[in-house]
Amino acid sequence: MAELTTLSGDPFDRTAFESLLKRRLFYTESFEIYRTSGNLTGDSRGLYDYGPPGCALQSNIVDLWRKHFVLQEDMLELDCTILTPEEVFKTSGHVDKFEDWMCKDSKKGDFLRADHLIETVLEARLKGDKAARGLAVEVEKSDGTTKKRKGPKVNDIKAMKLDDAQVKEYEEILAKIDNYDGPELGALIEKYDIRNPDGNSPVLPPVPFNLMFKTTLGPSSASPGYLRPETAQGQFLNFKKLLEYNQNSMPFASASIGKSFRNEISPRSGLLRVREFLMAEIEHFVDPEGGKKHPKFGLVKDLQLSFLNRSTQLAGKTDLQTTSLADAVARGMVDNETLGYFLGRIYLFLLRIGVDKNKVRFRQHMANEMAHYATDCWDAELQTTYGWIECVGCADRSAYDLTVHSKKTAEPLVVREPRREPLKVEEWQIDINKAKLGPTFKKNAKAVETALTALSQAERESSAAALEKEGVISITVPNLPEKTEVSEDLISIVKRTRVENVREYIPNVIEPSFGIGRIFYSLLEHVYWHRPNDPARGVLSLPITVAPTKVLIVPLSTHPDFAPLTLAISETLRAQGISCRSDDSSASIGKRYARNDELGIPLGITVDFDSVKDGTITLRERDSTKQVRASQEDIFSAIKSLIDGRETWEDVFKRLPEFLGQSGDE
Amino acid sequence: MAELTTLSGDPFDRTAFESLLKRRLFYTESFEIYRTSGNLTGDSRGLYDYGPPGCALQSNIVDLWRKHFVLQEDMLELDCTILTPEEVFKTSGHVDKFEDWMCKDSKKGDFLRADHLIETVLEARLKGDKAARGLAVEVEKSDGTTKKRKGPKVNDIKAMKLDDAQVKEYEEILAKIDNYDGPELGALIEKYDIRNPDGNSPVLPPVPFNLMFKTTLGPSSASPGYLRPETAQGQFLNFKKLLEYNQNSMPFASASIGKSFRNEISPRSGLLRVREFLMAEIEHFVDPEGGKKHPKFGLVKDLQLSFLNRSTQLAGKTDLQTTSLADAVARGMVDNETLGYFLGRIYLFLLRIGVDKNKVRFRQHMANEMAHYATDCWDAELQTTYGWIECVGCADRSAYDLTVHSKKTAEPLVVREPRREPLKVEEWQIDINKAKLGPTFKKNAKAVETALTALSQAERESSAAALEKEGVISITVPNLPEKTEVSEDLISIVKRTRVENVREYIPNVIEPSFGIGRIFYSLLEHVYWHRPNDPARGVLSLPITVAPTKVLIVPLSTHPDFAPLTLAISETLRAQGISCRSDDSSASIGKRYARNDELGIPLGITVDFDSVKDGTITLRERDSTKQVRASQEDIFSAIKSLIDGRETWEDVFKRLPEFLGQSGDE
Repeated sequence: MAELTTLSGDPFDRTAFESLLKRRLFYTESFEIYRTSGNLTGDSRGLYDYGPPGCALQSNIVDLWRKHFVLQEDMLELDCTILTPEEVFKTSGHVDKFEDWMCKDSKKGDFLRADHLIETVLEARLKGDKAARGLAVEVEKSDGTTKKRKGPKVNDIKAMKLDDAQVKEYEEILAKIDNYDGPELGALIEKYDIRNPDGNSPVLPPVPFNLMFKTTLGPSSASPGYLRPETAQGQFLNFKKLLEYNQNSMPFASASIGKSFRNEISPRSGLLRVREFLMAEIEHFVDPEGGKKHPKFGLVKDLQLSFLNRSTQLAGKTDLQTTSLADAVARGMVDNETLGYFLGRIYLFLLRIGVDKNKVRFRQHMANEMAHYATDCWDAELQTTYGWIECVGCADRSAYDLTVHSKKTAEPLVVREPRREPLKVEEWQIDINKAKLGPTFKKNAKAVETALTALSQAERESSAAALEKEGVISITVPNLPEKTEVSEDLISIVKRTRVENVREYIPNVIEPSFGIGRIFYSLLEHVYWHRPNDPARGVLSLPITVAPTKVLIVPLSTHPDFAPLTLAISETLRAQGISCRSDDSSASIGKRYARNDELGIPLGITVDFDSVKDGTITLRERDSTKQVRASQEDIFSAIKSLIDGRETWEDVFKRLPEFLGQSGDE
Repeated sequence: MAELTTLSGDPFDRTAFESLLKRRLFYTESFEIYRTSGNLTGDSRGLYDYGPPGCALQSNIVDLWRKHFVLQEDMLELDCTILTPEEVFKTSGHVDKFEDWMCKDSKKGDFLRADHLIETVLEARLKGDKAARGLAVEVEKSDGTTKKRKGPKVNDIKAMKLDDAQVKEYEEILAKIDNYDGPELGALIEKYDIRNPDGNSPVLPPVPFNLMFKTTLGPSSASPGYLRPETAQGQFLNFKKLLEYNQNSMPFASASIGKSFRNEISPRSGLLRVREFLMAEIEHFVDPEGGKKHPKFGLVKDLQLSFLNRSTQLAGKTDLQTTSLADAVARGMVDNETLGYFLGRIYLFLLRIGVDKNKVRFRQHMANEMAHYATDCWDAELQTTYGWIECVGCADRSAYDLTVHSKKTAEPLVVREPRREPLKVEEWQIDINKAKLGPTFKKNAKAVETALTALSQAERESSAAALEKEGVISITVPNLPEKTEVSEDLISIVKRTRVENVREYIPNVIEPSFGIGRIFYSLLEHVYWHRPNDPARGVLSLPITVAPTKVLIVPLSTHPDFAPLTLAISETLRAQGISCRSDDSSASIGKRYARNDELGIPLGITVDFDSVKDGTITLRERDSTKQVRASQEDIFSAIKSLIDGRETWEDVFKRLPEFLGQSGDE
């Protein structure tokens, strides 16, 4: 993989980046004072708190998501509970199948996720081979960042020559690592003698580990429950009410934003693999007939996306194909318009919050990789220093969930709609003479009737012939030991035409599912850069819509004359719902701008001696560091118009006079 | 209690009200299709899902909360994890003390909450007494609503005369029912022979039941964890980082909005006592010295609130005192300005979202009622058909939490600030001659040194005297069996003046804590009424800021000419971020308005034949049902101005021409 660069083309320095995020409290490990003081003996990894700027950024992303999807597409938002009784997840398949494969270190007892173990070991061997061949390899530093190194000084890498066939084998395994099931992973571990890199002990064969957190509801211990691993089930259980709320009109979508939980075997990569996370999920219910067209597909069809499809990966490759959504659907790579429409909307959403369009790809899942409920799935992946990260999944869950819940509860989770043309069905019908059947079979009469009605069309046809020929048929009735004979005085079987005026179907579900924490982290990597030749001056170029704080207010100095104006500006902005931050510390104005660039604050107001005299203030733009000067009224209205998206900075810069003094950015 | 009335003065009909909320999907029982089909065998009560209008109302309340508190008061918002390792809640006291008292039915095995049991039984007896005296009593109908009834036809009430002293005793017990601990509740149960009303069996003595949900973190079973019962602990654990983020300036507040969980023994009263709920909590950190003044107290001091203080309740009464916050603080009923300031801000927030100001009171907790961490607590209670409901708690947690976490982790959770005047402290200091102490006590030297340094000022003073007189002192060293003698060649104890330039203190915490679900339900009761003489036409008079949907669009009929304009209006509004709903069903326009009044939609646009001709549309206001007519541009700008709060309906009605035709509301 080519080395990642920042927006300004500099190599990406993850150490500097993550130190900025933690220093400025975008996020922090949960219970850190307990961890660092040695008070946490158990496994409480994979849990993070968001501090003020992180929390604001997260809530702005969620807000924009709600506008982009729920409001703009008129979706039905729900807020369902996290706690869920066991019965629901038994039906949905999560109790039996929501698992990862886990190996236990035979000596130390550590638990390792099987696919990650194989990946780590094979990647290390490939590096060893490169080192042995004298090629440059990526080495990981203690902080988790990587650098290309060559030669004998490459740390931690055992030079070890592999033959060419082996290299090819390893690379192919890695390309489809997500596609192996447990026994296959076990076979790979045995075949390639894969051991725990920490201590080199052999590991036991992979066993399934259920990823749901379990608890008990109520004071008795008889009611097991789980924390939901996705918000979807609550939406499915409410399907009937939602359809009613939507005045029985199809298609429609429900949506939910909320926390979900997965008990990861070994959390890693900071915010990217955690045990508690914020999700935003859409369940779009669509008629499975008619090719799943979407009326608004035309709005996204010309978007050019980068695709990595299933067959490319199974061939052990990772080449991207860039093409329009129209073409992808026409060629059948993306199955249908509805799926294509959502891939387009997902892409537009990601760009809208500030994701770098050169760091987005859409990857199709391989067969074994898909969740148990999915028939097809595309992930929107964002490129980061941790590799390509799955941030949005877009799965076709077919009619799986509605069917299983409907079966379990006997509640028809279906759409009924009048047919334009009544449907005529030729079929064999059974007429039962109940007045005679009862006395004939007595207590078994009901069971016989049920067995008769259960006969298939083919069975009915042959039974009709038998009845005509022999005057009697013999059928199997559950719980009765022998075949039961039913004679022609009890039933007749005739072919008739039935007219169906109503069509009944179980909708299919297309599910775009967003991992907000992963998007949050990847986005921050995408917008991070530093001022030319000054790696210490980091900037987060977040779009104004999602920036945690919109306006920084800096008085020129700590002179007491500035305080009333600074306060008045801040109150005016707050009253308009615009978040702002005053920095009136004694640091130089340049330093204060620099440290607030780290928070991604897009606009800065300076209060100086002229402000006190004539009321004018300056407005600085974060990325260009350019400034304009005008009356407070003009500056406030420019700020409002920038936030509402009515003007760009270029517009404002053209229409208000530039200010060249005291920029502090030199 | 006087019978509750709606905004329009009609008696409150809870059956009609709750049926409206469920029918229009404000909320619904979770997993309802599992429950009704008999698939839930365990105890999964107390869990509710919010449907589209409920979800929007909830998120609008949260949004306003964020503006009213976080933005306007410049609070530091955090988003901390729900999953928390056991160690944290051991320290905070929740593992040992976060309990309710529970009785088990000796025959049926049901679990009952002890205080609720006593309440139910004594209230029933008081009713029986009234019935025996021939007075009117409140009777509960099968749907949970109450009506006043008199005479022999009073259902379910056993007329049973009590003597006057008994009536007084029961009434006093009920007034302070929240103040009894477990053994006291047990004594009451025995004294008054209180049994399970369902079956009349005796109950076993109350035992404590911990209300936290337990789970396990990670794949091994060695890491117990809990779902947080409040968001507060995450905020306390991050105190040090927050103080730093706030540039070490005090006072400041953090805030969190998120789900919390309490495993209620017997959930009841719909949304009011549930097991999973949304909370919004503020932790305001304040210097305990200087009387906890608040610089903005002046902004709220003249607000008149209704108070029910501790001493009134302990006297067995419930009379309210209405007075200004200034007076309440001056008289010491409310302990300090900071507490008073937050009571005022809470009150303003409640009014802002639409709570009826005649149905709010502030009740002080009695001593035993307070959570283990609180030294004082006032609840904002809202009056509903279920009685007065605690919706916001405002507790003074003193320095409790920061102190215990600091002790446990050895992390100083303190504020250090330079003293204006250095503080001079006269104190006895111990000088230890370490060069001699080591060889003298060998392996015990460290322990002896620790014991010496631990001596209090009083002990040092007497030791100094002893040392002077006898040349030796004898001290107790932990883990050494006998007294240890330390002679004057090893130590000297002298009085010196120490100068302290820095003051160090643990802040106190004032915690306003909002139960969003309870506020949500109570608010809906407050804004519910029906059109005169038409109980079937319910209206929810939600303020426009929190209303789930802002605008209803109704074409006059299903005529196809209306469709393009209806769609265009809806797209224009959505593009401006204004939520709207089109109702183009074939029902009469009056019926369509009526059913959308049930959703609390404040504004309605009608598209009629004139609209198609000249582009004008009408705008209807929900509460008055009055309409104006103007160009689309004027109507859109009026809508925007109403939503932003720049104009009231009265303003708009005055400036735009009234429309009198086709109102559909007659």
